[in-house]
Amino acid sequence: MNPQVRVEVAVAEQEFRVRAIGWVESPLVERAGAPRQGDEGGPEAWVVFEAGVERGLRDLAAGQEVLLLTWLHRADREVLTVHPRGERSRPETGVFATRSPDRPNPIGLHRVTVLAVDGPRLRVEGLEAIDGTPVLDVKPVLPGPSER
Amino acid sequence: MNPQVRVEVAVAEQEFRVRAIGWVESPLVERAGAPRQGDEGGPEAWVVFEAGVERGLRDLAAGQEVLLLTWLHRADREVLTVHPRGERSRPETGVFATRSPDRPNPIGLHRVTVLAVDGPRLRVEGLEAIDGTPVLDVKPVLPGPSER
Repeated sequence: MNPQVRVEVAVAEQEFRVRAIGWVESPLVERAGAPRQGDEGGPEAWVVFEAGVERGLRDLAAGQEVLLLTWLHRADREVLTVHPRGERSRPETGVFATRSPDRPNPIGLHRVTVLAVDGPRLRVEGLEAIDGTPVLDVKPVLPGPSER
Repeated sequence: MNPQVRVEVAVAEQEFRVRAIGWVESPLVERAGAPRQGDEGGPEAWVVFEAGVERGLRDLAAGQEVLLLTWLHRADREVLTVHPRGERSRPETGVFATRSPDRPNPIGLHRVTVLAVDGPRLRVEGLEAIDGTPVLDVKPVLPGPSER
């Protein structure tokens, strides 16, 4: 048996490429001015999708709550511990026990309400991501098992 | 003004690299046998992290609910509409209105309960991801604003 084959089988794939399917258009332009979470004053914003994925937006409608997954492009990916919410008085905490944007894979998770659907654009309420943030995915908020 | 400079400013970055920070070790080995959602019978599983990120797990403890973000490595990224839950009788629906693993950026989102923390490993309950699924991130489930 060729030993090279065994090595190749044992090594799992470690890196993957995500691509922006849309971008946030928001009056929030500075990370320092953004609220920590969407329910702490996230403004209304547009999410503008690539024409190529518009078909995937079918069946989203005003009034629905959805989860937006974003790429937090200003994040520091080397960070493993933080002072929660940037407050130096709070003890240093592992990033996986916090919602810090600084983390190895800076994927943002935002629960927002759809206000309007306009072709490849969604108007949403309660989004704390800054203008220009790339969007990776949209998922419905799951109702209880009986309603699935 | 050099017109090339203007072009470079206008083109936003579209692709990003994520990397596995850990892997799922689960008795579920086939996608066909996996439950659709963790609360529909997801078994207990281990999440085994890379030694390099173990410091980020500090402050996670048994009893906590966390969100695991995974890379659904068997997904078809060209799919934009699906029959929900694979049931052909249900009308074709845009993927962003479903939790289908097949979608342009196949990032899985799993709400699980931490049963135990053992160095770089978390024992969790209610995870429907199959054995070998790469893990990208862990986030706490957010309590109400007053408890943050």
